[in-house]
Amino acid sequence: MNANPKFLASTALVDEAAVQPLPQSRKVYQTGSRPDIRVPFREISQDDTPTMFSGEKNPPITVYDTSGPYTDPDARIDIRSGLAPLRAAWLDERGDTEFLDGPTSAFGRERLEDPKLAELRFNLQRTPRRARAGKNVTQMHYARQGIITPEMEFVAIRENLRREQYVQSLRDSGATGQKMAELLMRQHRGESFGAALPGAITPEFVREEIARGRAIIPNNINHPESEPMAIGRNFLVKINANIGNSAVTSSIGEEVEKMTWAIRWGADNVMDLSTGKHIHETREWILRNSPVPIGTVPLYQALEKVNGKAEDLTWEIFRDTLIEQAEQGVDYFTIHAGVRLPFIPMTAKRMTGIVSRGGSIMAKWCLSHHRESFIYEHFEDICEIMKAYDVSFSLGDGLRPGSIYDANDEAQFAELKTLGELTQVAWKHDVQVMVEGPGHVPMHLIKENMDLQLEHCKEAPFYTLGPLTTDIAPGYDHITSGIGAAMIGWYGTAMLCYVTPKEHLGLPNKKDVKDGIITYKIAAHAADLAKGHPGAQVRDNALSKARFEFRWEDQFNIGLDPDTAREFHDETLPKDSMKAAHFCSMCGPHFCSMKITQDVRDYAAQQGVDEKDALSRGMQEKAIEFVKKGAELYHRA
Amino acid sequence: MNANPKFLASTALVDEAAVQPLPQSRKVYQTGSRPDIRVPFREISQDDTPTMFSGEKNPPITVYDTSGPYTDPDARIDIRSGLAPLRAAWLDERGDTEFLDGPTSAFGRERLEDPKLAELRFNLQRTPRRARAGKNVTQMHYARQGIITPEMEFVAIRENLRREQYVQSLRDSGATGQKMAELLMRQHRGESFGAALPGAITPEFVREEIARGRAIIPNNINHPESEPMAIGRNFLVKINANIGNSAVTSSIGEEVEKMTWAIRWGADNVMDLSTGKHIHETREWILRNSPVPIGTVPLYQALEKVNGKAEDLTWEIFRDTLIEQAEQGVDYFTIHAGVRLPFIPMTAKRMTGIVSRGGSIMAKWCLSHHRESFIYEHFEDICEIMKAYDVSFSLGDGLRPGSIYDANDEAQFAELKTLGELTQVAWKHDVQVMVEGPGHVPMHLIKENMDLQLEHCKEAPFYTLGPLTTDIAPGYDHITSGIGAAMIGWYGTAMLCYVTPKEHLGLPNKKDVKDGIITYKIAAHAADLAKGHPGAQVRDNALSKARFEFRWEDQFNIGLDPDTAREFHDETLPKDSMKAAHFCSMCGPHFCSMKITQDVRDYAAQQGVDEKDALSRGMQEKAIEFVKKGAELYHRA
Repeated sequence: MNANPKFLASTALVDEAAVQPLPQSRKVYQTGSRPDIRVPFREISQDDTPTMFSGEKNPPITVYDTSGPYTDPDARIDIRSGLAPLRAAWLDERGDTEFLDGPTSAFGRERLEDPKLAELRFNLQRTPRRARAGKNVTQMHYARQGIITPEMEFVAIRENLRREQYVQSLRDSGATGQKMAELLMRQHRGESFGAALPGAITPEFVREEIARGRAIIPNNINHPESEPMAIGRNFLVKINANIGNSAVTSSIGEEVEKMTWAIRWGADNVMDLSTGKHIHETREWILRNSPVPIGTVPLYQALEKVNGKAEDLTWEIFRDTLIEQAEQGVDYFTIHAGVRLPFIPMTAKRMTGIVSRGGSIMAKWCLSHHRESFIYEHFEDICEIMKAYDVSFSLGDGLRPGSIYDANDEAQFAELKTLGELTQVAWKHDVQVMVEGPGHVPMHLIKENMDLQLEHCKEAPFYTLGPLTTDIAPGYDHITSGIGAAMIGWYGTAMLCYVTPKEHLGLPNKKDVKDGIITYKIAAHAADLAKGHPGAQVRDNALSKARFEFRWEDQFNIGLDPDTAREFHDETLPKDSMKAAHFCSMCGPHFCSMKITQDVRDYAAQQGVDEKDALSRGMQEKAIEFVKKGAELYHRA
Repeated sequence: MNANPKFLASTALVDEAAVQPLPQSRKVYQTGSRPDIRVPFREISQDDTPTMFSGEKNPPITVYDTSGPYTDPDARIDIRSGLAPLRAAWLDERGDTEFLDGPTSAFGRERLEDPKLAELRFNLQRTPRRARAGKNVTQMHYARQGIITPEMEFVAIRENLRREQYVQSLRDSGATGQKMAELLMRQHRGESFGAALPGAITPEFVREEIARGRAIIPNNINHPESEPMAIGRNFLVKINANIGNSAVTSSIGEEVEKMTWAIRWGADNVMDLSTGKHIHETREWILRNSPVPIGTVPLYQALEKVNGKAEDLTWEIFRDTLIEQAEQGVDYFTIHAGVRLPFIPMTAKRMTGIVSRGGSIMAKWCLSHHRESFIYEHFEDICEIMKAYDVSFSLGDGLRPGSIYDANDEAQFAELKTLGELTQVAWKHDVQVMVEGPGHVPMHLIKENMDLQLEHCKEAPFYTLGPLTTDIAPGYDHITSGIGAAMIGWYGTAMLCYVTPKEHLGLPNKKDVKDGIITYKIAAHAADLAKGHPGAQVRDNALSKARFEFRWEDQFNIGLDPDTAREFHDETLPKDSMKAAHFCSMCGPHFCSMKITQDVRDYAAQQGVDEKDALSRGMQEKAIEFVKKGAELYHRA
């Protein structure tokens, strides 16, 4: 049973599969204005173009890296000790926080003092940090004071993906350098639907976006292990992976493994949605070992504390849970404050009622007491907690549609409007906010969701679950939702919450987690391309050039999942020599369209004239000779 | 070696996995205006709603069925004999065709007379059929004469999916019947971008659409085994699966198996893209056993005939290949007539040149001879062949982009315009036409492709390959392209050519074929929903109702892939009793949002008042009692 920390202790490292560097990849860091701003990237090296083509060097390309120290061969990770608190000095310097004697939540103290939990407990050597009295420690608060924090600078460097260095290395790569730079940096003009995408991200731009609420950096002061990242429509589209155990299955060890596995493949955020036993201890292990922001739905745990009886929930229990989790370091809370009493009857005529767990808990509570939601009524009290730890709001869409039938209905949009009002309240407290969105929506109704969210929530980052564009494919909802996710990301959604193939059917295993993540990396990137995000096309261009030049290894390695690409290729052509072959199994050696195209181009170049003129200059005579020569070349290959 | 017909003969039946009826499904036929118009459907039966909810009967739902006789337990299939020629009588009746003494193509005769091929040869007992002198036997020709053929009536019945019967059975199902009918037949108003979707498809509507070229029924008179189907923007969006061997891998037996496997999961059309040995014989086996239209790229075989040397191709060889394949029964030909000499230099500055195999062959030919394409120049001669057998054109997009970089460029759109001109030429001959489209296109440039196609090609059906919306995910191009396919289907594309996970990496195996098909069924259906195709939402509604009512088996069976859905569910909750459980592994027994929602609804109903009023009438007092009762109920479950 992996849940036992004895198991964790005996291995000390997370599973090998999650810590190996990806093929031909190395971890690189770019240092910012001070030595302790070290922004991680993954650099993928490439082979030279084959000499039978142009023979040039292809400089390495840099990609966004969410995997933290796990893929750094220089890092020594012992999950019993957790990751290094890279932000600790920044927090200390600001001087607006203090260390508490210990957890201040009743539940946090109870768990700490329970000897039966000793075996399960992470051995944390520090006490929680909290804002000093009267202080507000949110990134939004600093931004509005005009302060550029190290977190903001970190994010700015991260978002630019070392593009300047790449251009320079292209220009430097021999005689054709400038031409290569133009080719590989070119991209289509996008359609951003009113986003404000700068050519390059500066720390000041990050500050402005956070100040106006258009982006957030989810960074609880009690999660100093996390590497800052931004969520906002003018930054790269991000993805979230959900993990978490339930009463039926899964364990602590498995959840930590799912987290390290998820970030390996590109999860920008991870939500721990555990509902089973030892929620508190599971969360602690995840947080201490996570380089990415962790989100939770505190209501789930609050419900456990009242033995699953929604009607027994109280503000006091909920508040204690918020503090408990804030002091552990959770970076954002899903808060279902928009499920208001008058909206609940609007769901009675739905096909699938209320499908959000948080939404249905609050609906049950409201109906039981015939009272307005205590979360809604205590929203400003919640803001006070959020700003003492810099926990961001993720305003939950408890009334999101659970079927195509229910999409874009009265209940859903009534809640969305309320979330817009609550966004304003949070901003009044300088608390960071993002807003959750659906769900199940047919393609033609997706844009309305985005447009209304932008209108009601004044461009606070939208964070959607898919949406699923049809209900008829259980087992494939990563795909039904990947379609909707790509579209809504294009329209302006800042973060996409993944859906795995197991959606509606069971809890995802590691394969499902990976399938969900890769699908959502595709959706997010397709959205960046369509928006015209600066530099978004760099990776597509590099991969396409590798593909055209038969650089098989580079084609695998530049892709999102080198392992699967290589495995698929090798099913048909397993020999290593075939990786250098100038053909592939689709067409065979005598019949390759890529090769023929290269011939066309080479011939035009041999003529030493502009390609369009070439046809008019005695091409006919030389053509036959050329084609014969070409044909021989392939027979040799 | 499966290619050997001895193997085929020894098994006689295709593999068991492809012939079992799907779970809780049975083949049903609806008879048209004459007894030999028997239109196949799949009917999926459903369980009653659990009595703890409303307890009503759920009538079976009907879905489109491409699997032909294979899933009919009454059918006896021996692939050595092929399928029954269900359209033979219709062809005879029209009296405008005649049986030839044998193949009239030189190649067809040569293969027939070669004793070495005896082992590989399908034992066909009839000779080819051809239009009698001066006759035109296309469905378009009949349509323009005002004739409604049995094929058109077949298609009309097929497209309506027995919706009227379903509504009636809902209405008949007890006291709540009318309410159920309203619930389950409701759907969102769509956005069809100018399509003309009728409420129900009549045979006359089919005739009109074919007459004006807005739809085709690909139905070669030498493929009487095929069940008529329509491709057009005002019909259900269709999908095509490519199969085919190459010089490197695969065999006849495998290709027949891939065909039966593909139609089991919903391929409306299959293209045989073989490029290896025994193309002629492989094709014969596929055609004789295929209930769906078969398309090919005759140029591939023509190239084999000149040993892979594009420059040696001649009109005579190409023409002989067209006749050879038309007499075997190929329903549509991809013809790369738009790759004209002046367009070729436009591709020289591309990232990935010409990636279409057909396009690159013709480019090589044109450059070698410095001549205009012989296919373009002989286009009217080709029309003469097409109308003698009713082969439809699929005008190939030989200059489609092979990378995001190359999307929507000058070469691509120059070719598209030419395809529009050729469409007019074909229509002058009453020859049916569809037009092929890209390729690799970022999301925001997809609609331009559709709009230009509608404009240049006057609404001739568009048939696109994806498009792939990013290049960075080799191994997942079913997903990168499924996104684009759903969108372009919504915009008006009539048929989507699938892409499998092996795209760019290798030849698909059966798992890849299925993954590609399910992904494309999702894309096509998402497009139907977004267009507001009449009745498109019926299946989503039925599945969502089953999901909400914890009818697990129905949820699996109504979905596109019952096997995978069941398998995923059973990974966590394998026991049969769990299929009746009113919870699932995601949340566990005490905590199910669906269940809570049902409580909300039940309570409102108990009050016997409109749900919105319920809150104001003493709800508070009874609420606590109800919730307690509800909670007990789940604990028992």
